[in-house]
Amino acid sequence: MPKITIAQNILAANDTTAQDVQQLLAKHGMRTINLMSSPGAGKTTLLERTIERLRGQLEIGVIEGDIETGNDAERIEAAGAETVQINTRGACHLEAHMVSDALEEINLTEMRLLFIENIGNLVCPAAWNLGEDIRIVMVSTTEGDDKPAKYPQMFAVSQVMVVNKIDLLPYVDYSIEKVRRQALAINPNLRIFEVSCRTGEGLDAWCEWLRAFVNGTT
Amino acid sequence: MPKITIAQNILAANDTTAQDVQQLLAKHGMRTINLMSSPGAGKTTLLERTIERLRGQLEIGVIEGDIETGNDAERIEAAGAETVQINTRGACHLEAHMVSDALEEINLTEMRLLFIENIGNLVCPAAWNLGEDIRIVMVSTTEGDDKPAKYPQMFAVSQVMVVNKIDLLPYVDYSIEKVRRQALAINPNLRIFEVSCRTGEGLDAWCEWLRAFVNGTT
Repeated sequence: MPKITIAQNILAANDTTAQDVQQLLAKHGMRTINLMSSPGAGKTTLLERTIERLRGQLEIGVIEGDIETGNDAERIEAAGAETVQINTRGACHLEAHMVSDALEEINLTEMRLLFIENIGNLVCPAAWNLGEDIRIVMVSTTEGDDKPAKYPQMFAVSQVMVVNKIDLLPYVDYSIEKVRRQALAINPNLRIFEVSCRTGEGLDAWCEWLRAFVNGTT
Repeated sequence: MPKITIAQNILAANDTTAQDVQQLLAKHGMRTINLMSSPGAGKTTLLERTIERLRGQLEIGVIEGDIETGNDAERIEAAGAETVQINTRGACHLEAHMVSDALEEINLTEMRLLFIENIGNLVCPAAWNLGEDIRIVMVSTTEGDDKPAKYPQMFAVSQVMVVNKIDLLPYVDYSIEKVRRQALAINPNLRIFEVSCRTGEGLDAWCEWLRAFVNGTT
């Protein structure tokens, strides 16, 4: 099966670049999160709210991955964080070499925490190591409560799951308990946060955990 | 760039199989729709409601694409349509050879309309022809109103856009007008339906259009 062999070679080359990225980031004392979700789960909004809340406490940088547009980078810069926009022009996931290129555009000296916002896609990004310390998968209460069972790889490779849009629970058919159960069956060590980026519910616990993550005390 | 050359070869082979699929379906007088969206936009629910409404009027079959689980096929069978489940075991989109295999399991004689529910992914499925007559992209009001701009390819290759979950408009920041504008800028011929699979709003117009589509009068 030549297709599979080729894919493995590409992934191996990606892993080598990801190791270089990780070493560079570690040298600068940076902690890095690869943030992944379906389109529209709320990744950019979570970053906006997080940057606002941690302003003055934690220097945050963001690499924004999108197929097209610089909209998200503009939103993140308006929230007050240094940002580099990657446009993949059709590609369905970020790769380590894209992150490597983006890092040349960022001043790493003062920064403690780097978010890499991946392309909105619950499948392909799971296969591509970007040199991050941890991976976070975000789901939302409006997507249906079967996502861990239907997209298990994403939950298997993540250390944290954020369930967003809990303010909409009264209006949708969604059982957080079912999602927890499915996700933990795939990955028993998954750390879970339930938040509403709209109302702010749950964001205190999330930001507290981020501070501990950066300080190495999680 | 060997990577791109290989991808083109794979796509060309896929197109050949897709042509065979299309000819087989045409021979049986079948009209076929490739239904695509983000995870959780409501593809399966739209099919459930559509099958219920058109029962006795239009014989519908469904090929269900999922990475894992047979949940969706069970839901569709319960709604009353013949169904084949494809599990891609990790792959992020359906390919024509999968549809070709699935068609061997379906009795095409009585059927007039075949839905192929693609993997929940707003990126990769856009590149893979499955032998369908038309492609429909579904978005929902809870995903944010920037999806056409951020995932333009999906809207460029589709003939119809269905905006689902309009019952949730009072609770989210979403401008249908903005989505319409973005989508039509990419694809001025896009036919647009606004529906709520939960309340039934908009489903009469959708079903009427489907009947006309099958009868070749759209």
